[in-house]
Formats: sequence, structure tokens, C-alpha cells
Amino acid sequence: MLIIGVDPGSNVTGYGLVEKDGVRSKHVCSGVIRTSSSKQSKRLLEIHAGLDEIIREYNPSVMVVESLFHANNSQSLIKLSQARGVILLLGESYNMTIFEYSPMEIKKGLTGYGRAEKDQMVFMVKKILGLPTLKSPDQADALAMALYHSHMSLPQRAVG
Amino acid sequence: MLIIGVDPGSNVTGYGLVEKDGVRSKHVCSGVIRTSSSKQSKRLLEIHAGLDEIIREYNPSVMVVESLFHANNSQSLIKLSQARGVILLLGESYNMTIFEYSPMEIKKGLTGYGRAEKDQMVFMVKKILGLPTLKSPDQADALAMALYHSHMSLPQRAVG
Repeated sequence: MLIIGVDPGSNVTGYGLVEKDGVRSKHVCSGVIRTSSSKQSKRLLEIHAGLDEIIREYNPSVMVVESLFHANNSQSLIKLSQARGVILLLGESYNMTIFEYSPMEIKKGLTGYGRAEKDQMVFMVKKILGLPTLKSPDQADALAMALYHSHMSLPQRAVG
Repeated sequence: MLIIGVDPGSNVTGYGLVEKDGVRSKHVCSGVIRTSSSKQSKRLLEIHAGLDEIIREYNPSVMVVESLFHANNSQSLIKLSQARGVILLLGESYNMTIFEYSPMEIKKGLTGYGRAEKDQMVFMVKKILGLPTLKSPDQADALAMALYHSHMSLPQRAVG
């Protein structure tokens, strides 16, 4: 099962693909889509085009996004939600199964602590996937989502 | 110039097409896209598919949306912004010029009063376009946006 985690952002959108093979999770590819336009609507088009390319190339069957509750201010929440809308649309367009987890669930699942710091999350993602480095925290967040779902959906847990 | 006004909503998205012919604005078509799925991501796909069909059929060159500042609560703002993201994406995909105006600007432009009631807006939209009835307030809002842009972009105003 190939899982894509996506961390939406108006400036930087992280993505991370993890292959779940039995009880093991393997890193397939990950990175970020950086938008360059000053216009929000053009940024959405850039995010859509960038992520569409990744999905076409790897054809994941599952998409994982963080559930969204609030942001620092209304304008940030609007920009973030607009990007999220475009990402959810892509997931549905490719008929993927979409899962949402809260940031706290993901942090707790990967580090044992729901309020874990960013560094701790990056450390765990690198450790589990055997990656020497991760360029961006958005990439790490996206991989954390894919990894969390991969672990959540282990056969022995599904019946628990 | 064919202008489409869009009033995004997670449940009901209004659209209204107005043809600007010199100083006159003519109603071309308008209506609403109602979503039926209980899943947000599927609703976004329904909005996208519905609006895509309208745009393909009529090929407007200009899209008008209301600028968004806040909503009753974070969850409403997220849902609304997600739908808005999908609509802006469509506008850019079809290489339309996208304009944003605040609800207050539009109300003031059409009724002379920035805090005009819904009924007053519906009355003015029907009057200007010569429509006997309008089924939904979302349809009226979408037409109001297209109309406002049509009037704003009159040649004698553009140089003012």
C-alpha cells in the first residue's frame, strides 16, 4: 500500500510517500512544493500542478492530511484552508482513500508524547525510515502523517 | 465580456453569468450547485465538477468572488475557504482574470448602502437584470458580484 502524507501551506506544501509492506514502512520519496506567485489563486494552481505530478508518477492509494482546527489568525486560516481544499480535491479526483488525524494524535503516535517538539518529530521520522537528513520540517511533517497511518493500519491493530 | 460571479459554500455554491455589452449587463444564466455527500472532500469534488461544467459550456473570461475575512466560527471558515480554494483553482485553470471585492463594496455598489439587507440586494439584482424571480439567495449573491464587476469596469469608470 502506497500512502502519501500532505502538509498544506500557501508558501510551502510538504509531501511524503511511504510504502507499507507488511509491518514495515519504507520511504519512497518526499519533498516540498514551493509557490512563487504573489497571487493566491496562482499559488493554488502551482500546488495543484506540483502535487498532481507526484501523484501521477507514484499513484498512491491513500492520502493522509492533518485535521485543521485553527490558525494564528483568520487570514492564515483562509490561505491554509484554500490550499487544503485543492489537496483534498486532488485526493478525491484520483479516487484515493483520505484519512485525517489531528497533529496531537500523530505526535503521540510517533513519539509517545502529544506535545512533542518539531526536532523530536524530525528525529523519529528519520530514525523509523532510516533517512540521514530531511531538508524541510514540512517534508518531515508530511512523512510523519504517512508513517502514522501506516502504523495505525497494521493488521494487528486494525482488529484491536 | 462574459463574467461569472461565484458565491462559494460547502453545501450550496451560487453562480451567475452576466454578459457585459458596452454599458449594458445581460443575464446569461445562473443557479446553484448543491452538494450531497457527507464527506467534505467529496463535496469539493462535486463543486469542482458542477462549476467546471458551467465554465466549459459558457467560457467566461472573468471570475468574481467575494473577499473573505471571517466566518461565524473556525470550522465554518475552514469549509468555506476549502470550497473557495477549489473555485479559485478553477478560475486559474481556465486562465480567467479573477477579481475580488468585499461584500460591503458590492452592496454599496448595487444599492448605495454597504449594509444593505439580503432582500434589498435580491430586489436590485432582479431589477437591473430584468428577472422576474430568483430561486436562491446564493444565486442572487453570485449575480450581484458579476453585476458589480460589470458596472465597475465600465469604460467611463475605468479612467476615473
